[in-house]
Amino acid sequence: MRRIAIVTSGGDAPGMNAAIRALTRLAISNGLKVLGFIRGWEGILENNYVELDSRTVGGILHLGGTILKTTRCKEFRTEDGLRKAAENLMEDDVDGLIVIGGDGSARGARELSKYTDSKIIVLPASIDNDLYGTDESIGFDTAVNTALAEINKIRDTAISYERTFLVEVMGRRRGFLALEVGLTAGAEIILVPEVEYDKEKIYEILERNAAKGKRSSIIVVAEGVGDTWKLAEDIRKNVETEVRVSVLGYVQRGGSPTARSRLLAALFSQKAIELLLDGVGGRVVGIQGNEITSISLDEACERVKPLNINLLKLAEKLAI
Amino acid sequence: MRRIAIVTSGGDAPGMNAAIRALTRLAISNGLKVLGFIRGWEGILENNYVELDSRTVGGILHLGGTILKTTRCKEFRTEDGLRKAAENLMEDDVDGLIVIGGDGSARGARELSKYTDSKIIVLPASIDNDLYGTDESIGFDTAVNTALAEINKIRDTAISYERTFLVEVMGRRRGFLALEVGLTAGAEIILVPEVEYDKEKIYEILERNAAKGKRSSIIVVAEGVGDTWKLAEDIRKNVETEVRVSVLGYVQRGGSPTARSRLLAALFSQKAIELLLDGVGGRVVGIQGNEITSISLDEACERVKPLNINLLKLAEKLAI
Amino acid sequence: MRRIAIVTSGGDAPGMNAAIRALTRLAISNGLKVLGFIRGWEGILENNYVELDSRTVGGILHLGGTILKTTRCKEFRTEDGLRKAAENLMEDDVDGLIVIGGDGSARGARELSKYTDSKIIVLPASIDNDLYGTDESIGFDTAVNTALAEINKIRDTAISYERTFLVEVMGRRRGFLALEVGLTAGAEIILVPEVEYDKEKIYEILERNAAKGKRSSIIVVAEGVGDTWKLAEDIRKNVETEVRVSVLGYVQRGGSPTARSRLLAALFSQKAIELLLDGVGGRVVGIQGNEITSISLDEACERVKPLNINLLKLAEKLAI
Amino acid sequence: MRRIAIVTSGGDAPGMNAAIRALTRLAISNGLKVLGFIRGWEGILENNYVELDSRTVGGILHLGGTILKTTRCKEFRTEDGLRKAAENLMEDDVDGLIVIGGDGSARGARELSKYTDSKIIVLPASIDNDLYGTDESIGFDTAVNTALAEINKIRDTAISYERTFLVEVMGRRRGFLALEVGLTAGAEIILVPEVEYDKEKIYEILERNAAKGKRSSIIVVAEGVGDTWKLAEDIRKNVETEVRVSVLGYVQRGGSPTARSRLLAALFSQKAIELLLDGVGGRVVGIQGNEITSISLDEACERVKPLNINLLKLAEKLAI
Repeated sequence: MRRIAIVTSGGDAPGMNAAIRALTRLAISNGLKVLGFIRGWEGILENNYVELDSRTVGGILHLGGTILKTTRCKEFRTEDGLRKAAENLMEDDVDGLIVIGGDGSARGARELSKYTDSKIIVLPASIDNDLYGTDESIGFDTAVNTALAEINKIRDTAISYERTFLVEVMGRRRGFLALEVGLTAGAEIILVPEVEYDKEKIYEILERNAAKGKRSSIIVVAEGVGDTWKLAEDIRKNVETEVRVSVLGYVQRGGSPTARSRLLAALFSQKAIELLLDGVGGRVVGIQGNEITSISLDEACERVKPLNINLLKLAEKLAI
Repeated sequence: MRRIAIVTSGGDAPGMNAAIRALTRLAISNGLKVLGFIRGWEGILENNYVELDSRTVGGILHLGGTILKTTRCKEFRTEDGLRKAAENLMEDDVDGLIVIGGDGSARGARELSKYTDSKIIVLPASIDNDLYGTDESIGFDTAVNTALAEINKIRDTAISYERTFLVEVMGRRRGFLALEVGLTAGAEIILVPEVEYDKEKIYEILERNAAKGKRSSIIVVAEGVGDTWKLAEDIRKNVETEVRVSVLGYVQRGGSPTARSRLLAALFSQKAIELLLDGVGGRVVGIQGNEITSISLDEACERVKPLNINLLKLAEKLAI
Repeated sequence: MRRIAIVTSGGDAPGMNAAIRALTRLAISNGLKVLGFIRGWEGILENNYVELDSRTVGGILHLGGTILKTTRCKEFRTEDGLRKAAENLMEDDVDGLIVIGGDGSARGARELSKYTDSKIIVLPASIDNDLYGTDESIGFDTAVNTALAEINKIRDTAISYERTFLVEVMGRRRGFLALEVGLTAGAEIILVPEVEYDKEKIYEILERNAAKGKRSSIIVVAEGVGDTWKLAEDIRKNVETEVRVSVLGYVQRGGSPTARSRLLAALFSQKAIELLLDGVGGRVVGIQGNEITSISLDEACERVKPLNINLLKLAEKLAI
Repeated sequence: MRRIAIVTSGGDAPGMNAAIRALTRLAISNGLKVLGFIRGWEGILENNYVELDSRTVGGILHLGGTILKTTRCKEFRTEDGLRKAAENLMEDDVDGLIVIGGDGSARGARELSKYTDSKIIVLPASIDNDLYGTDESIGFDTAVNTALAEINKIRDTAISYERTFLVEVMGRRRGFLALEVGLTAGAEIILVPEVEYDKEKIYEILERNAAKGKRSSIIVVAEGVGDTWKLAEDIRKNVETEVRVSVLGYVQRGGSPTARSRLLAALFSQKAIELLLDGVGGRVVGIQGNEITSISLDEACERVKPLNINLLKLAEKLAI
């Protein structure tokens, strides 16, 4: 292992830069050279990279986004694309490739691993937190806190107007973000894609709350649950309450990473460099309990990360 | 003047509570009794109020929203409604009424003043900042800073993905918020309802920026400019860039008031109590330059507050 | 178990209110009555309490501090004091007592448990995070993020002036806060009470950094390391750099709890109520790995929580 | 006017970078060349500068501190120093020099103006806000809001412990920051260097508050008032309350500039460039009321900016 490359792929997440900094500095202090491909898979396909050293990754620890940029790249997923990427890795003498990204990036990495001898390590970074094999991804804690701060502000208006607010948070397929935001924001109701919801029960809860004098409610809805505006309409028709929708947009991806997202970035990076120095590839780094671990890329791609249904029930009990 | 009442009306704005606190404490230290009507005009119509004293307004200075609640009330605008409101004010011995709100609230106050002998003072509080007679309303500075923080986060993603973001901020009829947010956020383009925009010019600016290597742009759009999603579609068709829309929602109304919003609340309150103690009504308090002033309610309702077009031009020059 | 009491003790920590809310609501939904003693142990000694129900703990989830107040109480630690406290618990029919606090509070709880039959459960809440038996205490994550934000601001000035800043964070006996803040803030040097430091090495690092063109440095120092001002003086004498000291004070205890501090509050509360419903006392609730656990009060008080020295080494490597 | 230079001097203030960006872009769009001297006056003495263009000032709008660095420079104030500085300005063909800084920087600029033909314009940027000729300096609004946020956090602990907190804010000679922070934070007492204070009155207020059941108080003290620790000791001896001191340190200088600090930076820059293009020097730009103005450097240095004593009295009335 003499030369490694870093690539950030898929949706950006706060803490990606912290990982780029940690990986680069740890690699260099172990005598490795470090490249950074620009714009995700596209950078590998176009052989577009920069050399990274301790100085170039200085002053980025606190920045949201990724200095290596990212993009969605369709060409990469074709056989030609993967072959081309593998060739470029060989041409650039990349012995180890570290992919910073989420579930989709892990799948891409797995495909690529079939075409290249470069050792590939995936560092989970995603506000969706949906990659199997790690309790938490880089950026998740930041996104939860960002959404929480938004809801705090929305609650000011909700209380002043005594309205019901549907707050839609990111999560097209999974409800990790919605669940943790909802619980910690004290949302009256939380809707996630993993659990079918019953409109009648929503009406009932809102009416029960109104009867108790609680005239404003926050309902946190994961993007993937369905049509939030339609749901608002239905509530409006069935419950005597003013209803408003607030879609928390791209702010959820941005912002300076929290301490926890930075800590994960440091710990995951340490593990990734250790694995590469041991000549190991095809792994996804993660945290399980309080241990930094790794599982095989295959397992990470094939298994589905379970949502903690206990948390959902707990949230319900706390919102009485 | 022995007994005054406070009402918050229309859209809530950060600093309304700071004003309720300041008004109450200043009134009480001048020997007045203070009532607070609940839920805006509706509270006057239903004679629903609480007595306010120094303690009941303690611990609210930093809270967003309004402890007196607010609502939109259609009945109030009818002649019967206004008559009923005036009767209730008389019945409650309300010698002076302070209305905390924006342009719409001032119009309501003006109507009501035709039916009652209570002296009415309007305290401008509105994130739209559209009330004539004051350079700035309570809550405006807070909303600008909130939107600014949102755009900072969105910019992380905009830069990482090299995308164009259309960020829609509040302002159905006026562009004060969009203009100040756009200028201070360093937005590449700012669109306000007061100035017709030229799509071709937008395309041109985006292309010129791209040519200079600036591949991500922020376009701040006031709500009232038109269909932001349609504009995004048009840009997508005409410029080679990925376009995303982010609608900053109700967060813009919430949050703890900034120092400036709190300061205005204190200064406006001082002026309002002075006016009432002098037996003066039918005025809108405001800040003009660095002086706390008041103008007549009629003038405030009849004249239109001009947008500072110089600022728009300055913003354009700064975004090169 | 029919009647339980909650008390917050020792230094306040963000998330204590989240715990009061969660404990109360979970207890009530299990048919228990809930008291809250006012001002820590003093409240038990003086039999000063309020009844808590779902409504009284509404709207407190996001508040720093503790609505039950806290204080340092010397009398409690005497035999007379403990006996008096035990009598009052019996008189008030308190079957279970939940103590929210840190290491000192656990010791107090242990003493008290020798005099009373009330089942006592400790909920770790402390920005010092020094209680054995839990990886993390309620409030710790918040304090880390607060201190991190402070250092971000100090870094602006440090870079502009090219100065060395000694930033003192809380931690009279332990370095958990300093370590996590230092690592995530990218501090050049971290000093904790658990590890003796070598002044010569500090001078060396500062000179090495200056030689590399890094003319500003942040040194995070835990309060308990020694005299920070003296250290500043020594650096000033031995290294050619301007040195400034910034002591982060009580802000570290305040602020709205982060999502993680709120989540721990909810999970710890769930466990505490479960234990009490099972008739179990004398336990300290905690999180170990990703499991919510409990250990005996004796073990928690007798053992010393180890500092993760690996993290300290990792921080050093990352700050090159 | 063909070539201008920018220098940041004295204490750094949030928004200096916003000014550097605005000045540079406005100058360039008017066909001027722009230099930036590094490390304040020292940079002029050592002829240490960089060329600035639209790109080099990109991405700095939101950053605290100053990319041009700043320092205290004794040599500059000597006749030799001033002569040397003037020579360098001539050698570098600097027709106009813009000095971004506070009261001390204005005095330095005035001295320098006696030795050089370069037109000198001062842009007020200072968290002390003590420069005569402008209602507000760049950075002041940011510092007020930063200190306000700190006090909000300290209040959590103050209330939980029912303590009196002395919060010391920056301001060695003037109380502008203390006054505005104190008023907007709802401090019970505000002490500024401009007004002698009476210890007996402080004791009285604290006792009166305690009698009313208000057992925690915040006293905001400007640095220049005297020995804050000694005052704490005196209060402790004379009033039955626990007293704590919190010194808000360098955080007050840092952080991302608020919208208002950015707006002032833009407007002041526009005025400065206009003046230089008109061939005018020896002026201090400012905002008076809502107009952007300029006064002579001499007047700015000779007159003393008055503190608004009305505000102090208003704060007192609001804290009952």
